[in-house]
Amino acid sequence: MPKLSHRAENMPASPIRKLVPYSLAAKQKGIKVYHLNIGQPDIETPDSALAALKDIHLKVLEYSLSEGNIEYRDQLAKYYNKLGFGDISAQNFIVTNGGSEALNFTLSVLCDPEDEIIIPEPYYANYNGFSTALGVKVKSIPSSIESGFALPPIDAFDQQITSKTKAILICNPGNPTGYLYTRQELEQLAKIALKYDLAIISDEVYREYVYDGESQVSVLSFPELRDHCVVIDSESKRYSMCGVRVGCMVTRSQKILEAAMKFAQARLSPVLIGQIIASAAHVKDEAYIRSVREEYTKRRDLLVKLLNEIPGVVCPNPKGAFYCMVELPVKDTDDFAQWLLESYHLDGETVMIAPGGGFYSDPALGKKQVRVAYVLKEEDLRKSVEILKDALEKYPA
Amino acid sequence: MPKLSHRAENMPASPIRKLVPYSLAAKQKGIKVYHLNIGQPDIETPDSALAALKDIHLKVLEYSLSEGNIEYRDQLAKYYNKLGFGDISAQNFIVTNGGSEALNFTLSVLCDPEDEIIIPEPYYANYNGFSTALGVKVKSIPSSIESGFALPPIDAFDQQITSKTKAILICNPGNPTGYLYTRQELEQLAKIALKYDLAIISDEVYREYVYDGESQVSVLSFPELRDHCVVIDSESKRYSMCGVRVGCMVTRSQKILEAAMKFAQARLSPVLIGQIIASAAHVKDEAYIRSVREEYTKRRDLLVKLLNEIPGVVCPNPKGAFYCMVELPVKDTDDFAQWLLESYHLDGETVMIAPGGGFYSDPALGKKQVRVAYVLKEEDLRKSVEILKDALEKYPA
Repeated sequence: MPKLSHRAENMPASPIRKLVPYSLAAKQKGIKVYHLNIGQPDIETPDSALAALKDIHLKVLEYSLSEGNIEYRDQLAKYYNKLGFGDISAQNFIVTNGGSEALNFTLSVLCDPEDEIIIPEPYYANYNGFSTALGVKVKSIPSSIESGFALPPIDAFDQQITSKTKAILICNPGNPTGYLYTRQELEQLAKIALKYDLAIISDEVYREYVYDGESQVSVLSFPELRDHCVVIDSESKRYSMCGVRVGCMVTRSQKILEAAMKFAQARLSPVLIGQIIASAAHVKDEAYIRSVREEYTKRRDLLVKLLNEIPGVVCPNPKGAFYCMVELPVKDTDDFAQWLLESYHLDGETVMIAPGGGFYSDPALGKKQVRVAYVLKEEDLRKSVEILKDALEKYPA
Repeated sequence: MPKLSHRAENMPASPIRKLVPYSLAAKQKGIKVYHLNIGQPDIETPDSALAALKDIHLKVLEYSLSEGNIEYRDQLAKYYNKLGFGDISAQNFIVTNGGSEALNFTLSVLCDPEDEIIIPEPYYANYNGFSTALGVKVKSIPSSIESGFALPPIDAFDQQITSKTKAILICNPGNPTGYLYTRQELEQLAKIALKYDLAIISDEVYREYVYDGESQVSVLSFPELRDHCVVIDSESKRYSMCGVRVGCMVTRSQKILEAAMKFAQARLSPVLIGQIIASAAHVKDEAYIRSVREEYTKRRDLLVKLLNEIPGVVCPNPKGAFYCMVELPVKDTDDFAQWLLESYHLDGETVMIAPGGGFYSDPALGKKQVRVAYVLKEEDLRKSVEILKDALEKYPA
């Protein structure tokens, strides 16, 4: 039996991996499980995209260009032009198998094994996975629930930067926090990136889903970051087409694009069909985005209100994405989440939540927190919070 | 400007990267370019797969399971059962974004940076890319055109193995050589893998396209390799659906599967639509595969005959896949391939070929060779060889 790599041993398991068997067992017992634990929206994919599928008349489903087909990249450029970036053209994109591959290419271009990236925490758990797969070390800087997970004091970044540091990675608006960085916070990050000649990698896949009349500020809007920033983007959340696997990396840096192209060419091609249907979705999508944003706003308002009504629960009001990081009045949310699936139900129903520890480099920091995704319709969210409230009363630990 | 990684600097460019601008320039001058340089078949995707696209009635194009949806993995298991592996079930597969990702996961699970894998050369150029991206070193062992690129003497493997060696990677039938390993050759490899506790990674994506009544022997048919082999598979070539990006890794090793799952979970999901249409293609595909095999047989027969009729050209008769590695009577096929696009045409037409150097760790070994793909219809192949013959006569160098 060949010995496996350290890389494989060190790969973190998904924060909910341990819970999956309990969830399956609960379902086998006939218990209905509300999934607050994953970012799979129940929102329908746009009709234009679904119609485009039926309108594919190709006889050979062939490779696309490694960087993505020109039609789709032109569509992306138009979209970025509408966002206010008139100088972005098709050549600023490399189309990828989801945002995941965009991040993989970006980290590969910037970091060697043993290099470091800095991420404010809690952070999207798979950032740690992608980094570990490439031998890159994550240095995390805690943000606090009291501040709603605002950017930690910039001094904390200064202190973590070493000669090995290559990039700062943010998610804006954030998964799992829903936090929306302010222009001032991003300016601070820009300043420190330039001071130490670091890249800023900004995961902006939730940029459409920002509430209360605010709008997202992209790192692309800082001209001084021209050679220092890469945006990770994806169609998955924008158009509720997570299974289509189309994302992209966007940068003005020719050097980064050229280097990333070598990784893109090695894997030959992103997915052809996804590019076709995502292109269709981008045409006249304003009404769709507006209505989905309204739906998420209603869900967030409901969820945050109901959660904060439960004694001992603390839920900041997230400005974007569709998650909140919630503090529960329990000692160990790993245990609580498992108990919910293993030993509890309310009239044959329970909820699955993502324990907070997996979103921190030091799981202890998230022991009292859980991530809740508001990807379910209002009725189901209402029911889920009722269950959670009842469960917190009955939880023995 | 942040410094890019050594990994990015070391990433090999595609063997034809330098030629692409010349190919575009030729086309702009109105010259027709026959592409013998790429593995993009002109063969139509099966009707069943194209029909399945139009039959997708999902309202949400959601994530599939990280390991691939059960319906598709069941279909894969049936296919492997038909190949003679009755013990292979859905749980032996991890579905990936093309064979590329399957190889990425497999190398990640087996190798750390500075570890080594052994590959007989010439080899598929991107093996070097995937390895470099992960910091893994390729040790190559030359095979010779005189033997038709048969497995090099097994002693040569013995000599290359160090404490850093983790795996032997083969492609069977081979890209770029078309060579089909015999059972005896695979037995030798099995023996050496077990002797040194190495994994055998076998890229078998061309297994359907084997000629002259022969059939491919999979590493899965060696029971002693149970914990020591991983097969890389893909629907791309089997069903001429390269742009669909569905592949898989197949292994009986639970340890390898469990470790690979962590990498699969980090990137969340393979492509949903590709799994649906590949499933459709697998149902009753015998007639399709047979007719495509016949087509490739005709093309190979024609190409090999015509090429060998050109003075000074040496083309072994490949038993599988749809490539041949051909020796030309020139000193430097890099220069010749460029000249074909830049300075030559025959009645407004030319050919693009892949210089052989890119398929060797030491490019000098391939300086007189080119890879020719027989992915074009007979008429175009005939025309292409005419052009090549004329060009070789006129080539000044």
